[in-house]
Amino acid sequence: MNFSSDNAYGATPEVLAALTAASEGAVPSYGDDPVTARVRTRLCEIFERDVVVHPVITGTAANSLALATLCPPHGAIFCHQESHIAVDECAAPEFFTHGAKLVHLEGDGAKIDPAAVAGALPNFQRGVHSAKPSVISITQATELGTVYTPAEIRALADFAHANAMTLHVDGARFANALVSLDRTPAELTWKAGVDAMSFGATKNGALCAEAVIFFEPKRAADFEYRRKKAGHLLSKMRFISAQFEGYLTDGAWLKTARRANALAQRLGDAIVSIPGASLAHPVQANAVFAYLPDAVVARLRDAGARFYDWQPPSGGRTLVRLVLSFATPEEDVARFITIARA
Amino acid sequence: MNFSSDNAYGATPEVLAALTAASEGAVPSYGDDPVTARVRTRLCEIFERDVVVHPVITGTAANSLALATLCPPHGAIFCHQESHIAVDECAAPEFFTHGAKLVHLEGDGAKIDPAAVAGALPNFQRGVHSAKPSVISITQATELGTVYTPAEIRALADFAHANAMTLHVDGARFANALVSLDRTPAELTWKAGVDAMSFGATKNGALCAEAVIFFEPKRAADFEYRRKKAGHLLSKMRFISAQFEGYLTDGAWLKTARRANALAQRLGDAIVSIPGASLAHPVQANAVFAYLPDAVVARLRDAGARFYDWQPPSGGRTLVRLVLSFATPEEDVARFITIARA
Amino acid sequence: MNFSSDNAYGATPEVLAALTAASEGAVPSYGDDPVTARVRTRLCEIFERDVVVHPVITGTAANSLALATLCPPHGAIFCHQESHIAVDECAAPEFFTHGAKLVHLEGDGAKIDPAAVAGALPNFQRGVHSAKPSVISITQATELGTVYTPAEIRALADFAHANAMTLHVDGARFANALVSLDRTPAELTWKAGVDAMSFGATKNGALCAEAVIFFEPKRAADFEYRRKKAGHLLSKMRFISAQFEGYLTDGAWLKTARRANALAQRLGDAIVSIPGASLAHPVQANAVFAYLPDAVVARLRDAGARFYDWQPPSGGRTLVRLVLSFATPEEDVARFITIARA
Amino acid sequence: MNFSSDNAYGATPEVLAALTAASEGAVPSYGDDPVTARVRTRLCEIFERDVVVHPVITGTAANSLALATLCPPHGAIFCHQESHIAVDECAAPEFFTHGAKLVHLEGDGAKIDPAAVAGALPNFQRGVHSAKPSVISITQATELGTVYTPAEIRALADFAHANAMTLHVDGARFANALVSLDRTPAELTWKAGVDAMSFGATKNGALCAEAVIFFEPKRAADFEYRRKKAGHLLSKMRFISAQFEGYLTDGAWLKTARRANALAQRLGDAIVSIPGASLAHPVQANAVFAYLPDAVVARLRDAGARFYDWQPPSGGRTLVRLVLSFATPEEDVARFITIARA
Repeated sequence: MNFSSDNAYGATPEVLAALTAASEGAVPSYGDDPVTARVRTRLCEIFERDVVVHPVITGTAANSLALATLCPPHGAIFCHQESHIAVDECAAPEFFTHGAKLVHLEGDGAKIDPAAVAGALPNFQRGVHSAKPSVISITQATELGTVYTPAEIRALADFAHANAMTLHVDGARFANALVSLDRTPAELTWKAGVDAMSFGATKNGALCAEAVIFFEPKRAADFEYRRKKAGHLLSKMRFISAQFEGYLTDGAWLKTARRANALAQRLGDAIVSIPGASLAHPVQANAVFAYLPDAVVARLRDAGARFYDWQPPSGGRTLVRLVLSFATPEEDVARFITIARA
Repeated sequence: MNFSSDNAYGATPEVLAALTAASEGAVPSYGDDPVTARVRTRLCEIFERDVVVHPVITGTAANSLALATLCPPHGAIFCHQESHIAVDECAAPEFFTHGAKLVHLEGDGAKIDPAAVAGALPNFQRGVHSAKPSVISITQATELGTVYTPAEIRALADFAHANAMTLHVDGARFANALVSLDRTPAELTWKAGVDAMSFGATKNGALCAEAVIFFEPKRAADFEYRRKKAGHLLSKMRFISAQFEGYLTDGAWLKTARRANALAQRLGDAIVSIPGASLAHPVQANAVFAYLPDAVVARLRDAGARFYDWQPPSGGRTLVRLVLSFATPEEDVARFITIARA
Repeated sequence: MNFSSDNAYGATPEVLAALTAASEGAVPSYGDDPVTARVRTRLCEIFERDVVVHPVITGTAANSLALATLCPPHGAIFCHQESHIAVDECAAPEFFTHGAKLVHLEGDGAKIDPAAVAGALPNFQRGVHSAKPSVISITQATELGTVYTPAEIRALADFAHANAMTLHVDGARFANALVSLDRTPAELTWKAGVDAMSFGATKNGALCAEAVIFFEPKRAADFEYRRKKAGHLLSKMRFISAQFEGYLTDGAWLKTARRANALAQRLGDAIVSIPGASLAHPVQANAVFAYLPDAVVARLRDAGARFYDWQPPSGGRTLVRLVLSFATPEEDVARFITIARA
Repeated sequence: MNFSSDNAYGATPEVLAALTAASEGAVPSYGDDPVTARVRTRLCEIFERDVVVHPVITGTAANSLALATLCPPHGAIFCHQESHIAVDECAAPEFFTHGAKLVHLEGDGAKIDPAAVAGALPNFQRGVHSAKPSVISITQATELGTVYTPAEIRALADFAHANAMTLHVDGARFANALVSLDRTPAELTWKAGVDAMSFGATKNGALCAEAVIFFEPKRAADFEYRRKKAGHLLSKMRFISAQFEGYLTDGAWLKTARRANALAQRLGDAIVSIPGASLAHPVQANAVFAYLPDAVVARLRDAGARFYDWQPPSGGRTLVRLVLSFATPEEDVARFITIARA
């Protein structure tokens, strides 16, 4: 019973098969191989646009390289104070951007809105004295398992562009948001004004595969130099690209995301019926944030369940995070519910 | 009538005289000159301790070099969201530290306390995933013209040290705080647990003279390499040191600070008697933050008074900042009051 | 006939099998998994010492993270002017070290010796004015297919340590050097004074697997923060570690290196018998640097052979680089020789 | 008898007087003052062009900020291996550029030419794998007291521009070169193809005053943010600008440079007549590099002369550097000659 993270599980059979198949023969290195070319074409189809695609191997690298490309060293990046780039990447964006400032904002469900950014702006409109507002970055689905609607994204994009900024999306769980909202990839990105996205595959079934996608080619300037200079250009690039091929073929990525979301929904539904338990945020993707009575938490851990306390115990209950994955066994979910209810 | 900033005025006659005197003859460069040696000795006397002293030319350089010496690239620095390092230095600390994270905290009067830092800590205690808590930085006197008492500093220092952090003070207006609190330099720094301070002279009568002071020599490791690498080691260092000599001799620095503070006090006292006006913060140093009726603001500006709106006009009044300096003419203060009252 | 690089080929069956096997089940992420633990143990056995092991995914990352750990921002790193860190990594070491200086040295066969470093030292012994000599970095086997003997390494290590520097080895092709010299891993590293090594597996049969090895734990300080901050900490770390498991089991890595070296030897031996052809460097690993008559070059390319010109054609001949790999078909080598001789 | 450096002496009376005069009254800070505006106008006149001028306080800052503005983080900068940016600035350019690579070249008299750059280029034309050739930087007058003619500068500029690079001049001793070559400032800079220059005043009579000059406004993009972020924007900017005013008025800067050059010429002429002594480089500015018999060196030092050994003693003689300054007493030169000849 491992609900600690969606990176606790391995890779899907499709991804492993594509990887093994890609190993055959000699091909050009550093991304000039046919697998990488096919993945580019496939993502252009999926996003219904001629996008720029650059594979990397971690979400932190994808976010940091995207932000460094969008934001000058003297820029400011506005994000939620619970976002991955703010508190889970060891200040990697500050390193890759050569010292840009991340401005942490508040907002329910780990979501920000134009008003939150507007409230922080005046402190960063002092000419050369303050870091220059450059990027708004949001996470889709968020770190608290919620999603941004296309209208919410559009509002942020419009605000960003009206203030000479761009909009970046950390899409480490983009597939989960996509199936949750039942919209197309295009509708959730460039059609809503998104300029660049970190498109994650790792959490949803790959080994280590993320792609930075720029929806306007002009935004991608210098990205390839930055990737190389950061040690993120793989010589045998086909092995990342192959993962995407296995991931994207026949909608495999949507199936795994749907499965994880459905398990989260089931778990969330069960939790609200437990006496003393409640949801901290609506379950809109593959994570459940719930207040559980401390006795329930103890019982679950005794039974071997793994999950994180999101806050220290307080008042007899604890806010816990439960993450469901493409590979979480259904019986683990059932067992969790049974024990929690006992 | 210039109340825009304490850097709007030039230098004191003592500083200029010392500078001119220091120009004579040939001496070793890069700080190995007798003037710099004398300033070191003088500051050790003033702080009653064998401190490490390194002159630089701007407050931003002093703060950033001090913080880079105290904080690793993967560290986090806790400061007030209105602090100079947060919003007035174009993310210079992020650049000098090679990408450390500044965590902006709230607090009345631009002051933070241990509870504010403690509240933010959990997000930065995730091992390598989050930036490592490394430094607490406060400003004395603050950007809002308030001061930290020795007890408040001690509480922050104790909290910092208990959490493997250090305490840095941005003392751009240290002299103003000193005379306001009527304590010794030692009592406001190392006796209260401060590890390093940016000791400012520019705003209080020098041309361009700041010094980074480390109260424990071991904290100063690598500082000299960092200063050189940042282009902040002057070949003719005697010219910065000479400013300190003029500044510190015969308590000149305390006299200029007392004068500026007294003018601020007079102005603050007058403002509270103006109908519709009030102070936003207690006047504890050389700045007055006051809500003035918009008509008063207009009248003052029409008469040639220069000062900054600290917030946009709202509800018929405006929060303005009025900074008093060692050189602000008394008649300017009197005239300001007369016009405001008219 | 692909002799362009040893990264043109995929991965060995052992590596792919280990990867697939590692995908099963849920395990802790970010390196706290059992596969990573086993690889650490295995490498300690192989190096006959309690070494610190940190897997990453590219040689550039391994080198840059190792160098950043060994060298302060104000440090100087001495290396050959043809070394990978000097001219093939887009100045990544300068980025990761936050601005250290790489000093490029000359030397036959892409090898440097203490005299070369000593000759450059005086320019970097000017106190804070010059970058501080901090690291000597060598490549084993070198970029020109030569190797350092244990005695040569020892001389460099002694010189480094006598001058308060450390010795780093870029071991992207360490296996090829090992089987060439017929020494133990310990003899070529810590027993000869090496402080840290980038231990490559990618070129010799992995997909993307390198490990930074510190032979003294104290040298590894902060490495884990640096890796995370650079986006090089994989959530599903087991997939890199699994590659090492497949790579190291039953001496698989030595077999693949022996095969590549033997093919290089065969090719080198054949080339010297071609009229007008000669070797530019002794063939000591898996690469052949040869001067070939331009007509031979043209004939080979017409037949589909892929390889790089190392220098532009000059005087009727061209210096070419021919790299042999664990997977280069024997018949390709035979065919190359036949065509070259024709 | 101090011949150690031209920064061993203080400032000229003109500079000190201008500084003192500038202290009067309240003016806008951060460069929006009338003194700074006047200096901009004056330099436009001097350079016969509408140039962009940004004052800073050290040569290292001027060079590093100029290079960071001209060169991306993934760029390469070609310079002489004895240049100040290469070996006297603690790798500051690498820090300010966020990790660009300095490529050190050889050349007589600390001068480089297009052939030297061309010879190094191929290693930096490997796409994203190598740092991208971006800037050629030369020193005028050089660190060895020689000068570049307009034709030599033009050749480098043409080569730079033909290869998508720019040409930067470290003009820490530009005045000395100017009077030596008897050309106009325009002829030695933009008319010869120079894109940006660090225009030094410190060594020739100021306290601490350098200016970065861009001859094409478009090249100056982001400079002001970089300067602020590096802590090099002075609040009381008028005090740097005032130095320039004193420096430039009535050709004062040319007089001081002529004096220093003339003293160097006299010293150089005397040295060649000393048995066993010779010049290492032609005396074209204000420095003399001479081989002196060790007995002469000892005698001079016994008499109190200060100067640097440029190389360790060898074969009974030592290469020494003797720098003449605007303020070196004539009698010191005469006495040096007398003692050397004795």
